[in-house]
Amino acid sequence: MTGAEQALELLLSRAAGLPVLPAETIPTTAAAGRVSAEPIYAPSSAPTFPAAAMDGYAVVSALTFAASEARPVSLTVPQQAQPVDTGDALPAGKDAICKIEDVHEQAGSITVLAAAWPGQHVRLVGEEVTAGELLVTSGQWLRPRHLGLLLAAQVWSVPVRRRPVVTLIPTGSECVPAGEEPGPGELVEYNGPMLAAALTQSGAEPRLLAPVADVPEALAEAIAQATENSDLVAVIAGSSAGSEDFVPHVISQLGELLVHGVRMMPGKPLALGWLGDTPVIGLPGYCVAAWIALDRYVRPLICHLLGIGVPQRPRVTARVQRKLPSSAGIHEVIRVALCESGGRQPVAVPLPRGSGSIISLARAHGLLAIEEASEGLDAGTEADVELLASPEEIARTIVAIGSHDLALAVLTERLAQARPPLTLVALSTGSAEGLAALGRGEGLMAGTHLLDPATQEYNVTYIQRWLPDLPLILVNLTFREVGLLVSPGNPQALGDVADLARDGVTLINRQPGSGTRVLLDFLLQQRGLQPQAVAGYEREAYTHTMVAEAVRQGTADAGLGIRAAASAFGLDFVPVTEERYDLAIPRAFLDLDKVAAVLQVLGEPDFRSEVTRLGGYSVRSMGEIVYEQ
Amino acid sequence: MTGAEQALELLLSRAAGLPVLPAETIPTTAAAGRVSAEPIYAPSSAPTFPAAAMDGYAVVSALTFAASEARPVSLTVPQQAQPVDTGDALPAGKDAICKIEDVHEQAGSITVLAAAWPGQHVRLVGEEVTAGELLVTSGQWLRPRHLGLLLAAQVWSVPVRRRPVVTLIPTGSECVPAGEEPGPGELVEYNGPMLAAALTQSGAEPRLLAPVADVPEALAEAIAQATENSDLVAVIAGSSAGSEDFVPHVISQLGELLVHGVRMMPGKPLALGWLGDTPVIGLPGYCVAAWIALDRYVRPLICHLLGIGVPQRPRVTARVQRKLPSSAGIHEVIRVALCESGGRQPVAVPLPRGSGSIISLARAHGLLAIEEASEGLDAGTEADVELLASPEEIARTIVAIGSHDLALAVLTERLAQARPPLTLVALSTGSAEGLAALGRGEGLMAGTHLLDPATQEYNVTYIQRWLPDLPLILVNLTFREVGLLVSPGNPQALGDVADLARDGVTLINRQPGSGTRVLLDFLLQQRGLQPQAVAGYEREAYTHTMVAEAVRQGTADAGLGIRAAASAFGLDFVPVTEERYDLAIPRAFLDLDKVAAVLQVLGEPDFRSEVTRLGGYSVRSMGEIVYEQ
Repeated sequence: MTGAEQALELLLSRAAGLPVLPAETIPTTAAAGRVSAEPIYAPSSAPTFPAAAMDGYAVVSALTFAASEARPVSLTVPQQAQPVDTGDALPAGKDAICKIEDVHEQAGSITVLAAAWPGQHVRLVGEEVTAGELLVTSGQWLRPRHLGLLLAAQVWSVPVRRRPVVTLIPTGSECVPAGEEPGPGELVEYNGPMLAAALTQSGAEPRLLAPVADVPEALAEAIAQATENSDLVAVIAGSSAGSEDFVPHVISQLGELLVHGVRMMPGKPLALGWLGDTPVIGLPGYCVAAWIALDRYVRPLICHLLGIGVPQRPRVTARVQRKLPSSAGIHEVIRVALCESGGRQPVAVPLPRGSGSIISLARAHGLLAIEEASEGLDAGTEADVELLASPEEIARTIVAIGSHDLALAVLTERLAQARPPLTLVALSTGSAEGLAALGRGEGLMAGTHLLDPATQEYNVTYIQRWLPDLPLILVNLTFREVGLLVSPGNPQALGDVADLARDGVTLINRQPGSGTRVLLDFLLQQRGLQPQAVAGYEREAYTHTMVAEAVRQGTADAGLGIRAAASAFGLDFVPVTEERYDLAIPRAFLDLDKVAAVLQVLGEPDFRSEVTRLGGYSVRSMGEIVYEQ
Repeated sequence: MTGAEQALELLLSRAAGLPVLPAETIPTTAAAGRVSAEPIYAPSSAPTFPAAAMDGYAVVSALTFAASEARPVSLTVPQQAQPVDTGDALPAGKDAICKIEDVHEQAGSITVLAAAWPGQHVRLVGEEVTAGELLVTSGQWLRPRHLGLLLAAQVWSVPVRRRPVVTLIPTGSECVPAGEEPGPGELVEYNGPMLAAALTQSGAEPRLLAPVADVPEALAEAIAQATENSDLVAVIAGSSAGSEDFVPHVISQLGELLVHGVRMMPGKPLALGWLGDTPVIGLPGYCVAAWIALDRYVRPLICHLLGIGVPQRPRVTARVQRKLPSSAGIHEVIRVALCESGGRQPVAVPLPRGSGSIISLARAHGLLAIEEASEGLDAGTEADVELLASPEEIARTIVAIGSHDLALAVLTERLAQARPPLTLVALSTGSAEGLAALGRGEGLMAGTHLLDPATQEYNVTYIQRWLPDLPLILVNLTFREVGLLVSPGNPQALGDVADLARDGVTLINRQPGSGTRVLLDFLLQQRGLQPQAVAGYEREAYTHTMVAEAVRQGTADAGLGIRAAASAFGLDFVPVTEERYDLAIPRAFLDLDKVAAVLQVLGEPDFRSEVTRLGGYSVRSMGEIVYEQ
């Protein structure tokens, strides 16, 4: 096990001996995004002749020497003064330009009111680019502007470094290539295409192989063959400590294993090695870990082969509003959404840390690293965030933390269609955690449906208890039907929450703090049932759809959830109650255009009917302020 | 004439009625850099089955209920405990995973020391992605991570917005397409390929036509035809006020002219119009103005057609150390290099403002805008800079302001080959301006060769007079031969600077403050000559190569310059003197790695011999400290 930084140093010092890739010559017009392989000096100047820098008349400056407002000088056209447009060659015998605005034009002559000096408004040969000038060095990442510069100097073709060929070898007997429907027990290998696209953007030429089975001989053959025609080989999965993780073993048998395992999360199961002249990287199998390991270890190698520095992403300083614990001795990389509310610094909201949470990688605005020596960050500290999204995308994002609801997806798409588009990032943490997040200053709004058994009121008493000092409004989103999600035909004939205690019935529950969990506990209590009486009570899902999926898959017989989830998954639904689902919005954010846009959508008839079509929703109070403080 | 902001508002409000482009369905694996056209909900969950989240054993949790360190429980393999690797399907009948690290393995059985709970280390179906979840909204710029997310949910193809077709029509009777050698009076049309590359990067599909002559009928026909099969037409040049600037006229004849001329620099000669349903933009003809106008006016239209927000570039706050005057009523966009010297904020060094200075656009790290209402920035203020380069490129740049020298190009390429590569941005302003820049805190070093006629010493007395309080060292770069650059064969038989006063001899001079100008003035004085006695004394070039080019082109008969420039341009050289060329480096920057790297290169024999090969250089004192304070 090696430190994350140390592993990179080992890799790069081993790579120091690798030469940069050879050059190939391509048309300059096609060179954007390539890297120059040689210094390029201008073969020609631009302009190639002295030219008019203004629209006007080319004159002999000596003839204007005595001109003034009091004593204008008249010049004959075209003998002494010749009309020219910007860019025209300076006519022979003329040495200055009088601007069109500065002359009086008559038939056959012009009058000038001021002396012109030799060279006035004349572009010298080479004023844009002078022959012999160094245009680009070797190792320049060529942008459109550089193409303009090269073409201005008549450089029609340009030597660029060949793109590094990176062979990606996915492994895993259970994997099928993306595009094939997985059978029972099979997984879609989607890391390969994702990493191939990332490699292309880094300037490499990826070659993605079909998944190789977890058989050491097959793996060894695939790796050995790939090293013969690749500049770099990356093996996906198989570098952990499991019984079928053969990659480190194969590398050390065929070549040299530099590193096995790094103290980094996600990204721990990493292998760095060398076969002959070719680096072989064993990437982790979990998607997020694979993406991060590619970014941290493969991208620098590609840049080394191209002879360029490793492009760094822009960074911002963000506030961290909750304690972020992290194990000392582990370099942790946390995906964050950035919440901007008009203040000086955005708030970094950590997204789920799981190595397999591809959705949190897709949604991340940035990465926040917790150094190996650190045990985490305290609430209220500042942290450096590496940006994965453009500042404009972040500015137009509305972070909403709280309860999961299917109507939020409809809202998200509506906002995406606004002009300019808005992005709703709705994080499903449950109602209680959503309110807690608001209290910490995380998120612009929180979806909540917390029933107070004592008052039979939703949300209000919780807000008064937990957030007494936060001025906010509570806006109704929907009323929604809650009940038992059961298999089609309701085979166990469940009629009420009480039936969950029956023998042979297993539940899929929701996490503590979710409004649905609070409701279930209340309903069980009402019926005089203890949680222990319900089989599966300990099994937790985080969303209504995960509950529905567990029932559809037969992992559980029933779960408490909303009717819309049952409809979406083709399940039967046993109604139990109707609950109120509100959005809590701090008053401080009501002035933000993006928050106003959310409230506006709630008033749109189209939106309301689309939500109604999901099933089980009532929009009778949508957009109404049900409480304020 | 319209304000820059107002012109954009007019354009976008006129564009508001344009629908987003229709969708086309493409393979998800090929969708990086495209924009989703519809919201995409997950058709499948991932994983599609409950799976092991750890390497270890799948167990029946109920059997482990009583296990503790004191009372281990033994389970038979494979009946009660079945070995699994991460990602394996949970075997039928098992409901929990015990991690390999937490069990003792014996032949035919394992021992567990703690109770497993149902669902322990089991990935639920849908834990990565749950069926029915909104994966991406419409209008999402798809990155590799989004491809991963879509493929995880088995979305094999994706509806994306068609790329907007942008037809680029270069105009100008004097233009030849890039790739053709221009004849006398002809110009290379390099704006088209440069803008086409920029359009591709913005997500458009450019179609670049051959240059159209400045004939109204030809132009009208080209524009009308282009609107028939394009989503947007951009005409390059011909939108100014000259006699051959027909574009605004053609637009208003065929359609609707919204804007002619914006109060922006560079970028003033802009025309915004509409033909039927198609926006037609008349771009300025100067390269920098064209690039900026495309960025400011065409890019937002493309984003509108794609239904996305306009991606903003990251920004940094930089210090401005010199007064930057700007006309009130003009929105000015200034290219800057950013000089980082370890402090909190970089220094923004303005680059030449000319609309035709393609080299300063290519080198720019960022753009600094001076608002229309402002008359410029005072020295010592802070300014917001829009970044055109990555933070890493900026960090490894050494800004050197001062005298022009050909050896600096050799040094630049040497530093580009360092690992990690360094970028020397050498701005040719002349020696005096270079020292003044150091005094302002601009640049890390200054090349200088200022002769003090009183002492016959170079640089030292000037530094003592102008920068008495700046601790610095003066390091010799070269001694170099200076003389008259004349046509091959020296047709006028010039033998000395005194001959410049001869009848029929015309000079090309250097700008005031350049070391060469100072030297020429001294040499003339020494010979008892007045500047007025020298024809062409007023004509100024900014570099040795521009002087050489003027002599080669016959614009002048002679200029004072270095032998290396004569050699590079095939000119004859009449030696006059040898001068010392030094680098002044403030002590505060000597600790920077990149400055140390420069000093190191000065000691390399390879570098010295390469400089010597340029001709006229002596490296006898290269790298020696000739003065310090």
